[in-house]
Amino acid sequence: MPSAIPQTMRAAVLARAGEIRLEDRAVPVPAADEVLVRVTAVGVCGSDVHFYREGALGDWVVDEPLVLGHESGGVIVAVGAGIASERVGERVSIEPQHPSPSSSETLRGDYNLDPQMRFYAVPGTDGAFQEYVTIQSHFAHRVPDTVSDGAAALLEPLSVAIAAGRKAGLGLGSRVLVTGAGPVGLAVAQVARAAGAVEVLVTDISAERREASLRFGATHALDPVADADAVAGSRVDAFIDASGAAAAVRAGLEALRPAGRAVLVGMGLAELPLPVTRIQNNELVVTGVFRYANTWPTAVAMAATGQVDLDAMITGRFGLAQTQDALESTTTPGTIKSVVEPQR
Amino acid sequence: MPSAIPQTMRAAVLARAGEIRLEDRAVPVPAADEVLVRVTAVGVCGSDVHFYREGALGDWVVDEPLVLGHESGGVIVAVGAGIASERVGERVSIEPQHPSPSSSETLRGDYNLDPQMRFYAVPGTDGAFQEYVTIQSHFAHRVPDTVSDGAAALLEPLSVAIAAGRKAGLGLGSRVLVTGAGPVGLAVAQVARAAGAVEVLVTDISAERREASLRFGATHALDPVADADAVAGSRVDAFIDASGAAAAVRAGLEALRPAGRAVLVGMGLAELPLPVTRIQNNELVVTGVFRYANTWPTAVAMAATGQVDLDAMITGRFGLAQTQDALESTTTPGTIKSVVEPQR
Amino acid sequence: MPSAIPQTMRAAVLARAGEIRLEDRAVPVPAADEVLVRVTAVGVCGSDVHFYREGALGDWVVDEPLVLGHESGGVIVAVGAGIASERVGERVSIEPQHPSPSSSETLRGDYNLDPQMRFYAVPGTDGAFQEYVTIQSHFAHRVPDTVSDGAAALLEPLSVAIAAGRKAGLGLGSRVLVTGAGPVGLAVAQVARAAGAVEVLVTDISAERREASLRFGATHALDPVADADAVAGSRVDAFIDASGAAAAVRAGLEALRPAGRAVLVGMGLAELPLPVTRIQNNELVVTGVFRYANTWPTAVAMAATGQVDLDAMITGRFGLAQTQDALESTTTPGTIKSVVEPQR
Amino acid sequence: MPSAIPQTMRAAVLARAGEIRLEDRAVPVPAADEVLVRVTAVGVCGSDVHFYREGALGDWVVDEPLVLGHESGGVIVAVGAGIASERVGERVSIEPQHPSPSSSETLRGDYNLDPQMRFYAVPGTDGAFQEYVTIQSHFAHRVPDTVSDGAAALLEPLSVAIAAGRKAGLGLGSRVLVTGAGPVGLAVAQVARAAGAVEVLVTDISAERREASLRFGATHALDPVADADAVAGSRVDAFIDASGAAAAVRAGLEALRPAGRAVLVGMGLAELPLPVTRIQNNELVVTGVFRYANTWPTAVAMAATGQVDLDAMITGRFGLAQTQDALESTTTPGTIKSVVEPQR
Repeated sequence: MPSAIPQTMRAAVLARAGEIRLEDRAVPVPAADEVLVRVTAVGVCGSDVHFYREGALGDWVVDEPLVLGHESGGVIVAVGAGIASERVGERVSIEPQHPSPSSSETLRGDYNLDPQMRFYAVPGTDGAFQEYVTIQSHFAHRVPDTVSDGAAALLEPLSVAIAAGRKAGLGLGSRVLVTGAGPVGLAVAQVARAAGAVEVLVTDISAERREASLRFGATHALDPVADADAVAGSRVDAFIDASGAAAAVRAGLEALRPAGRAVLVGMGLAELPLPVTRIQNNELVVTGVFRYANTWPTAVAMAATGQVDLDAMITGRFGLAQTQDALESTTTPGTIKSVVEPQR
Repeated sequence: MPSAIPQTMRAAVLARAGEIRLEDRAVPVPAADEVLVRVTAVGVCGSDVHFYREGALGDWVVDEPLVLGHESGGVIVAVGAGIASERVGERVSIEPQHPSPSSSETLRGDYNLDPQMRFYAVPGTDGAFQEYVTIQSHFAHRVPDTVSDGAAALLEPLSVAIAAGRKAGLGLGSRVLVTGAGPVGLAVAQVARAAGAVEVLVTDISAERREASLRFGATHALDPVADADAVAGSRVDAFIDASGAAAAVRAGLEALRPAGRAVLVGMGLAELPLPVTRIQNNELVVTGVFRYANTWPTAVAMAATGQVDLDAMITGRFGLAQTQDALESTTTPGTIKSVVEPQR
Repeated sequence: MPSAIPQTMRAAVLARAGEIRLEDRAVPVPAADEVLVRVTAVGVCGSDVHFYREGALGDWVVDEPLVLGHESGGVIVAVGAGIASERVGERVSIEPQHPSPSSSETLRGDYNLDPQMRFYAVPGTDGAFQEYVTIQSHFAHRVPDTVSDGAAALLEPLSVAIAAGRKAGLGLGSRVLVTGAGPVGLAVAQVARAAGAVEVLVTDISAERREASLRFGATHALDPVADADAVAGSRVDAFIDASGAAAAVRAGLEALRPAGRAVLVGMGLAELPLPVTRIQNNELVVTGVFRYANTWPTAVAMAATGQVDLDAMITGRFGLAQTQDALESTTTPGTIKSVVEPQR
Repeated sequence: MPSAIPQTMRAAVLARAGEIRLEDRAVPVPAADEVLVRVTAVGVCGSDVHFYREGALGDWVVDEPLVLGHESGGVIVAVGAGIASERVGERVSIEPQHPSPSSSETLRGDYNLDPQMRFYAVPGTDGAFQEYVTIQSHFAHRVPDTVSDGAAALLEPLSVAIAAGRKAGLGLGSRVLVTGAGPVGLAVAQVARAAGAVEVLVTDISAERREASLRFGATHALDPVADADAVAGSRVDAFIDASGAAAAVRAGLEALRPAGRAVLVGMGLAELPLPVTRIQNNELVVTGVFRYANTWPTAVAMAATGQVDLDAMITGRFGLAQTQDALESTTTPGTIKSVVEPQR
């Protein structure tokens, strides 16, 4: 490692539910197939907020101090023994996963489903709310200068949206319903338009978020209650839930045309009552998205060519010392995406 | 029509819930694109029994006398104006549907999902528990002499199984769980083996049916209660529910490997609580089968080449006058499939 | 039929190779499932020109007078016995095919491959260079007022491009090579962009057409000779040939990444030497497009939402009496698409 | 490594075209993620023969001594630092490839197309005609005792056949043409039957091989010349070439139904004239198979359950010292597959 890299760094650590503490930690050392990245921007995700508030998410429990943050980008400052030093200096977006190379899931291209996955900011693996992180070299994806630091971080939620769009079969002429106009829903709406969808109906119980959706790809912003009949009668080709709400999932399944596809993205209740007879009689396809695989090259290109506008989704910027404020900010009216900038 | 065809025929009519009445009716006249078939065998399906017992099935209500029966075969005895008379004399299996030719579903090959479908034995359209029926010529599928009359009728449940197998992605090396060892489950198990599955786990609460499954394709017959752990740990590629039971669907979704596929075939409750987080975190695919499209040529070939044994599934034969007995027989121990033979 | 419809009409008839003659003919009468359309615009296709010049195209020989033209739109002025009269007055785009409803190809959704197809302007079936035509009601696709008469006609080449884009798997992030910048190539380039492609390389030997391609979706316009190395090194995901030229097909197959897809759209020589070892060692997929199926709803929506600009492709307009001039115009410099307007 | 493993071993080395020399070499040492396998059986492949006869195959030239053989199985006798020692003693079949874990091809599940692949018996990487080999642990696939040593080796050509069957879309009811009844053709025919094909037409110019095909899955064995009309009129769903002969490829493309699929497996001429208009007008799909990915678990299960009979394909067995004889034996009448057994 070049001498410019310090021995220690600051990290924003989740000490216990509700408490983020700034600590000094050793700068991590990249393994042979890894690079060391100086982090420039990290988006705050709903799952970070969940871990922060509850100290847990589903089956995952934070029983040791954990660094949150998995939407990140930065600059490569050092490389492991097996990586060409030419990479030093590259601006990159980080795909925050480390699958086993030999599981059957990885071998068939579903590496996101690898049961031995190590993933940023999941108990056992620290995330990116710190000054430096390591990642396997091929998961540090180069971004061109036209992609800002913040946008480089937001390629992560864009990747979720791309994965959802693929599973939903979005393409030329698609008519799609997106329930939930949070950051993921807005990314999905943008992806839908970029993929050729001709109608993108977005529902949200918040008028403010409905309004926002029209700036991010929605062709129609609908109130799930007042516009329930319009939604139910839409006969869309695809439905993507980005709300995690039972009522939204039910409404979406009701809205699909025969052989339509439903993709669940929002994290909600463990179990939902689903209209099985309707699924069967219409041969609906219901599936979900768990992170992503093979999305980053597409995400980089979409951001670089302006097919999506990620910068416009950033509504707040925080220093590393304000990470707790960033986590708290997600319920502030007007917030779409808060970003922590560890270097400022 | 040649003179050998009578003006009237006998039909077994569902007069009201619980009552089948033999009536004299006019022999139907084939439309230009139809053929007239003298019916030789008609299988009794669970949906027939449901209509017979309840006078209704889901949203369908029998409010006028209805002829049940949609698993049928026979001999072409006359043809409509647009059909070549060479077809007279052919032994055929009947695909009992009449979709609109111009719906978007039909045009893209999903004619079973056509919303204007007319289907045998659904209120509004009579079925095959009668001496003669009409059907569009291309849905009267020729069978070779190696396929018996009974087997010709049972190409219908075989078609359901083929449709389920396709949706489940069954193929070389598949490991599949089938819940429910009634006629559809047994047909699915046979289809799975014919498609190259290497493990076919079949569960049923009945020891007798579990036993039967081993003669019809199952590699392992399991008790859903006693063998619950073995099922849950099986990590199968595909799960096909032929039971309609909530517990079976839940167990099946639990058994799937990441990215596994679940296909619902059994008609059960309108709504089921499903493990949404598990679907999402494993990107499971859940779908259903509603009848079939483009299955008959495959079904005919499978029966003709002996890939499946349909005759062995027939456990009872009845005359048209005993149609009510045939419907009642389905709960008799040892019954797999009862068949009505209208010509006897 | 309402009284406003005349008994006779003018038709531009290919009498023999090189000679189009204006004739008076009886206005056709729609069959039960058809509508009668007053034709407002008809695009000139390369196959029309081929028939006009050679009196033949591949195996098809014009041995009786034939009306050319299969890219058409108009207004419904009468309906057959089975069609709701409400359709009278609708502006429509015509999908110029009439498949058999009962072939295995039609039943599985590939109705364009039906061997008994009757298609406009193929020997045996007249096309649309006349004042009125009939078509099955569901193949007269309603267009909104935002779609011009000319654009309604050009939904036909757009449909070819959509079919090609689907076969090529175009989608988010695709990098694609299109060889040939004639009307089909330009439609393909527009479709590629609408589907989310991030790089659309278009090659043509004509500098003028290369220039035009940049206005119709191309991100890079390349000279197949001067830029041969750039093309060969592009490692595109998909290659669509709209040139019919042997050298272009060879260059395109050379340019594909492993597992890339090649789609042949341009009609060229019956036989081409293809690099079989390269196809095999890279598991390239080579296929072709023959017309289209299930494309029109998408085409209508794409034109209506402005995802493509078809009006800008129209470089010449002709009356019915100038149909021969329209056919001759295709070699005039600057011509992209000539349109005949039979009502003017 | 346990003491039972010697320091040196015998290897059959291709010294120059036409000359195999037995040499003493150091036993290889497994890397951290590898195992060391004592080789029990190695099949002779056509590509081995080609390298042996010509000293080259396509672009690959043997310019240094090379150990041939890539169809192999054996027993794990030692493991690398990262592998559990419990694997020692396992009988395994070797998937003879070593892809890069980070190429885009590998990441999306097409690891066989990884451009940095190292593969047994390709110049630069020694193969298995020696007493010991190393392989990544997850590519040493455990086989049950019901799979013989010879069959374990022949899972490699079976994998090629599985890959071809998948690309061809073989499944329930398929009708398929296989051209060429050498070892790959016979494996393909068996795979086709196991996958549910109802007609498997096999052609070969050799009467003896046609005869053999009927014992290995063919339903019809046809002479490509005498039965040319039957082949051309067969309208099969899929065509798999295992001959590499131009005439066979042409005949196969002629035999396909609309939208049929052609898969090229046989290595033949670099370039072939293909009927492009026929491909286009019928939307045929032409592709090839290059080795395999994700086939071994299926291959093991197929052999273990008796869906295929690999032992019956072995017509000759040779010691390591007779490797040259084994390579020469492939043209001996009656030979299907020769196997070298290095331990005898």
